[in-house]
Amino acid sequence: MTTPLTLHPDRALPTEPAVRAVARAIYEQTRSLPLICMHGHVEAQVLADNEAFADPASLLITPDHYVTRMLVSQGIPAERLGVARRDGTPVETDPRAIWRLFCDNWHLFRGTPSRYWLEHELSDVFGVQVHPSTESADAIYDQIDAWLHEPSHRPQPLLDAFGIELLSTTDPATSDLRHHERLRQQGMGDTVVPTFRPDAVMHLDRPTWAQDVKELARLAETDTSDYAGFLEAIRRRRLAFYEAGALATDHGHLTADAEPLSDEDAARIYADAVCGEGDASSARAFAGHMLHVMAGMSCDDGLVMQLHPGVLRDHHSGTFAAHGPDTGFDIPVATEYTRALRPLLDAFGHEPTFRLILFTVDESTYSRELAPMAGAYPSVRLGAPWWFLDSPDGMRRFRELATETAGFYNMSGFVDDTRAFASIPARHDLSRRIDAGHLARLVAEHRLLESEAAEIAVDLAYTQPKIAYARPAAMA
Amino acid sequence: MTTPLTLHPDRALPTEPAVRAVARAIYEQTRSLPLICMHGHVEAQVLADNEAFADPASLLITPDHYVTRMLVSQGIPAERLGVARRDGTPVETDPRAIWRLFCDNWHLFRGTPSRYWLEHELSDVFGVQVHPSTESADAIYDQIDAWLHEPSHRPQPLLDAFGIELLSTTDPATSDLRHHERLRQQGMGDTVVPTFRPDAVMHLDRPTWAQDVKELARLAETDTSDYAGFLEAIRRRRLAFYEAGALATDHGHLTADAEPLSDEDAARIYADAVCGEGDASSARAFAGHMLHVMAGMSCDDGLVMQLHPGVLRDHHSGTFAAHGPDTGFDIPVATEYTRALRPLLDAFGHEPTFRLILFTVDESTYSRELAPMAGAYPSVRLGAPWWFLDSPDGMRRFRELATETAGFYNMSGFVDDTRAFASIPARHDLSRRIDAGHLARLVAEHRLLESEAAEIAVDLAYTQPKIAYARPAAMA
Amino acid sequence: MTTPLTLHPDRALPTEPAVRAVARAIYEQTRSLPLICMHGHVEAQVLADNEAFADPASLLITPDHYVTRMLVSQGIPAERLGVARRDGTPVETDPRAIWRLFCDNWHLFRGTPSRYWLEHELSDVFGVQVHPSTESADAIYDQIDAWLHEPSHRPQPLLDAFGIELLSTTDPATSDLRHHERLRQQGMGDTVVPTFRPDAVMHLDRPTWAQDVKELARLAETDTSDYAGFLEAIRRRRLAFYEAGALATDHGHLTADAEPLSDEDAARIYADAVCGEGDASSARAFAGHMLHVMAGMSCDDGLVMQLHPGVLRDHHSGTFAAHGPDTGFDIPVATEYTRALRPLLDAFGHEPTFRLILFTVDESTYSRELAPMAGAYPSVRLGAPWWFLDSPDGMRRFRELATETAGFYNMSGFVDDTRAFASIPARHDLSRRIDAGHLARLVAEHRLLESEAAEIAVDLAYTQPKIAYARPAAMA
Repeated sequence: MTTPLTLHPDRALPTEPAVRAVARAIYEQTRSLPLICMHGHVEAQVLADNEAFADPASLLITPDHYVTRMLVSQGIPAERLGVARRDGTPVETDPRAIWRLFCDNWHLFRGTPSRYWLEHELSDVFGVQVHPSTESADAIYDQIDAWLHEPSHRPQPLLDAFGIELLSTTDPATSDLRHHERLRQQGMGDTVVPTFRPDAVMHLDRPTWAQDVKELARLAETDTSDYAGFLEAIRRRRLAFYEAGALATDHGHLTADAEPLSDEDAARIYADAVCGEGDASSARAFAGHMLHVMAGMSCDDGLVMQLHPGVLRDHHSGTFAAHGPDTGFDIPVATEYTRALRPLLDAFGHEPTFRLILFTVDESTYSRELAPMAGAYPSVRLGAPWWFLDSPDGMRRFRELATETAGFYNMSGFVDDTRAFASIPARHDLSRRIDAGHLARLVAEHRLLESEAAEIAVDLAYTQPKIAYARPAAMA
Repeated sequence: MTTPLTLHPDRALPTEPAVRAVARAIYEQTRSLPLICMHGHVEAQVLADNEAFADPASLLITPDHYVTRMLVSQGIPAERLGVARRDGTPVETDPRAIWRLFCDNWHLFRGTPSRYWLEHELSDVFGVQVHPSTESADAIYDQIDAWLHEPSHRPQPLLDAFGIELLSTTDPATSDLRHHERLRQQGMGDTVVPTFRPDAVMHLDRPTWAQDVKELARLAETDTSDYAGFLEAIRRRRLAFYEAGALATDHGHLTADAEPLSDEDAARIYADAVCGEGDASSARAFAGHMLHVMAGMSCDDGLVMQLHPGVLRDHHSGTFAAHGPDTGFDIPVATEYTRALRPLLDAFGHEPTFRLILFTVDESTYSRELAPMAGAYPSVRLGAPWWFLDSPDGMRRFRELATETAGFYNMSGFVDDTRAFASIPARHDLSRRIDAGHLARLVAEHRLLESEAAEIAVDLAYTQPKIAYARPAAMA
Repeated sequence: MTTPLTLHPDRALPTEPAVRAVARAIYEQTRSLPLICMHGHVEAQVLADNEAFADPASLLITPDHYVTRMLVSQGIPAERLGVARRDGTPVETDPRAIWRLFCDNWHLFRGTPSRYWLEHELSDVFGVQVHPSTESADAIYDQIDAWLHEPSHRPQPLLDAFGIELLSTTDPATSDLRHHERLRQQGMGDTVVPTFRPDAVMHLDRPTWAQDVKELARLAETDTSDYAGFLEAIRRRRLAFYEAGALATDHGHLTADAEPLSDEDAARIYADAVCGEGDASSARAFAGHMLHVMAGMSCDDGLVMQLHPGVLRDHHSGTFAAHGPDTGFDIPVATEYTRALRPLLDAFGHEPTFRLILFTVDESTYSRELAPMAGAYPSVRLGAPWWFLDSPDGMRRFRELATETAGFYNMSGFVDDTRAFASIPARHDLSRRIDAGHLARLVAEHRLLESEAAEIAVDLAYTQPKIAYARPAAMA
């Protein structure tokens, strides 16, 4: 049995008719605004190569850990979804077989944001008109596959078709940025910019640390054998990113800890690490120290600092050993911001050239810690609901829990956080709908004028992200 | 003044008319489904004896700590409610006096789930047509009392009248299961099954530990003087439970800690405990270790593992000294799952014969820890909202906070958790209404098809609990 | 452009028409009830002096840290808002300039409770009929300024005009209560009462401790050179407050820790402090000990104990150095109540002369810790949503999260917590609207009778606060 797939024009809007009517009018103001995508994980190379996406499974299923983890959680081995094994054991390579398996299990996604985005993509991007199912799998596969191979559906024209005004990739400190250079030569330098993510060189106890620092030294043309050289290398890489158009840095630590060490202690711990010595505790102290240092460098160079702590990566060691990171086994933990960020905000929180955008997967911190900090410090903005919370009900709760204390204007507005390129328009569209619904409720409760609500909606969808990530006026 | 008591057919459904209409249609699909009661506390003996319930107070008031604690919280001594004292000091024994006191204070339950369930029981089970009040107390008492003494209202016919297909009791490792044997002989063996709850022998520092282990040894016909013998005794008792029809184990630790010890350390700590030595810290370590061991045994024998941590029992020592446990003075604490369960899930999380059902009274963990783990590990399912959270708004929040990340199919579906036998139908009915309301909202927001919603409702009410507690297919 | 400002009669009520109609009827029952203001921060001197408020800025902007922090968070220096500097550096002193700056930035308050209250004040108290804006700033200033200088708009007549039946100030242990004495002589002794807030002398590590204890000794006419004398001085000051009409004490510790020390340890730590010795850890232990002692004294003298832990004060040390405390840089932290309060409740939780009212800014504790404790201990009541949570959505969440477990009758009902005198009616009115909405939903879901809802609304708005803060019947 095939079930027709259509997108209802009022989806994700409030159910109460009078509120929905207001929400619809507000949404209409933002529906066609350009997309600002400052926190995503699309690869620069994909955009620079501008080759056709290979097939439906390798675009939509295999690399999307939201999708694979849900299938795995119901007992389907990751191997059958084409997720590569580190040991080279063969995994499923037939994209059509992977696609069928996904369609057979379409019901597992009911109620999840993946379902919402995939529906939107299938219908609005690929023109599919039936729900995935065992029966419809092959026809949908063929339809998407044909679509992907049309020249106008390569990555670069899609950027345009999707209405993306600005997209930031996320790049390690050791990226040579050559794909961004190619993009610049292709005239895309204002559309696609890098983001500086130095996590790998901040954590002394990562197995790859020594090698990454070596590469950092090479790219920065700096001797990193001591701490001063390491800082200089970081500074130079930040500059290289800045010159390549970067607007921001991005930091994914386990905690928000940002306690500075003395220069002596930092230098000593660094020196130990260079000799392959040191323990987990000194590595942790150094990582916290480096967040503080990164904030200081942001004051100097104006790169906006993004911080999203609180995820214990690679929770299942067997899955990590078999498949590596980013397979859906990253599990959040309770996260503390108030005490952790105090030294950093004490030092830089009122600096006019500093901007800190905070993300979380711990909703208990919205009203308790994040909104009060954003509602006081001039440098702090709240990022969009992140990861698991980038969902219809998750976004709604964020607005309800954070707005009363932080206000709308201490929020970054919507930025997506995805490696699923084709889902970008769906994510922005959903966010605009949820915001329209939240604002419509405030109008219906006579807590906002409708004219104000429409203005706020545009601000959250477009103006605020541009302001939040802008190079600081104070720098000019 | 007496106030008429009627149950509105639309109670607990959403208020918006169009959404309510959808919810009503969804609820209609589940209204009459059989009840699966896999997490309750009804006593096997009550069912095996099958004697008439004594009177309204000893059925509905005295043993229900939800009810007594609320009256105590407003200054009514537990003694006046018939709650026995350990020192033998007389307490109120006149059930009618207890019932009157309850009716005098009926207003205290406004807005609580106790009120919701009691209304349902009064009206739907006992046929009472007025609200409890000082004026109506005696008449209601007489009506219920007469009802209870009709032969068709004894426990076994009520199981049938309530539509209970399967009910699990909760039994200590030292239960001789003789009441379950009697039930089997009465032809009720498929309807009433035991659940293995070994908490008492897992916690070396309980005053009753030595005595409980002695009884364990006797029943298991095993020498428990060393750790190996203790494990063997546990294994044999699990088998005895399994053979008596048990599908699950149940574990109520203070934390979710499941860090294994080395065999040597476990054996040493056990040996100390046998000699009456050891401290709180080694007892804690041993309890965490035993959770890990229990998971391993579940892989072997297929008993589903249930874990509900996070309650500090017997918060008020004076109340505990006077009346013993389970008087309403158990208070939740913040609970950590991500790190605590990591060793257990690392070892067994992908085992095809393992199933772990997680409960909580810490709502901050729903979206942060529990849903992400259930949405990744094939072995993990989220139990129903538990204890204080088994309430209209509590269940609603659970769906809103957990579903987007875990999906519907990583949830156990509804299982009640009550020692109040007469409240079982009310609890299942309420859950079905709240689920209908949640699903109707998703339909009204065009996030689900109505046909899907009806299917999910049936799954959550009936199919999912049967699957969640089924002996693993991988065992066959 | 000027935008008309009107207060919609249905503001902050539910949006669904049928529910709103019920809510409106419930609200009508409480709309005109007198105000009970037992947790506020209006200064006794302001009321005793009864002088005209100086100007709009010094009444509404400069002293209100909710307002100033929001402007500061968007880069406006506190100095431009007239917030005094400790070093005497001049700050803006022209109230009209401050007022204009506020009006220029009126949009920053969208969606915040400050906006809600200010709208109410502007319209309902001052008769302003346009929204603040750059264009309307001067006219509004003139209108409010003229209003403030009418004799009938001095503090004392306003108490009456606002319908305030009882207002409690918050006063340090070292207050000589002379303004309360003046108020008594003016016949206002039953309307304005003090509250005993001894924080300053409980925390041995505050820089002002020695001086405060010296003043305490002087007022109490007691030698406080040892611990016994300190306790005696506290006891006498409590009595002085009691005799001046105080009903309650108020405690703002960082944690809820209430672990008692032995008398010897307490005496030793105290003696060290008198000698200027001791560390942060002993100061912390002493503060927790003193909470326990304060509870014991409440049992003796019947002063209701209020506790609101969980705020890390003066998060930004530069702001504190420049402007002192209470500038909006107090940030909440995760707060533990279950274990922290156990010793206190173990000792006093069932004492008939003890009453403990708990506040929080950590919403995760509502359903997990606070409601279960309030729903069991006869002495415990939950205070109104506090600080950041005293907001439309914040109050709604409190009702939804706490009521099912605590019931309505273990709550204190609404008490405001403000230093903004003119906002008091707005705050009570908003609370009554939110409660009406919550109750209307329960009625519409057939979980309450409409007659019960109306009764509860009156209880929460008026009866419950009077009961919660009443001198205990058991004292009589």
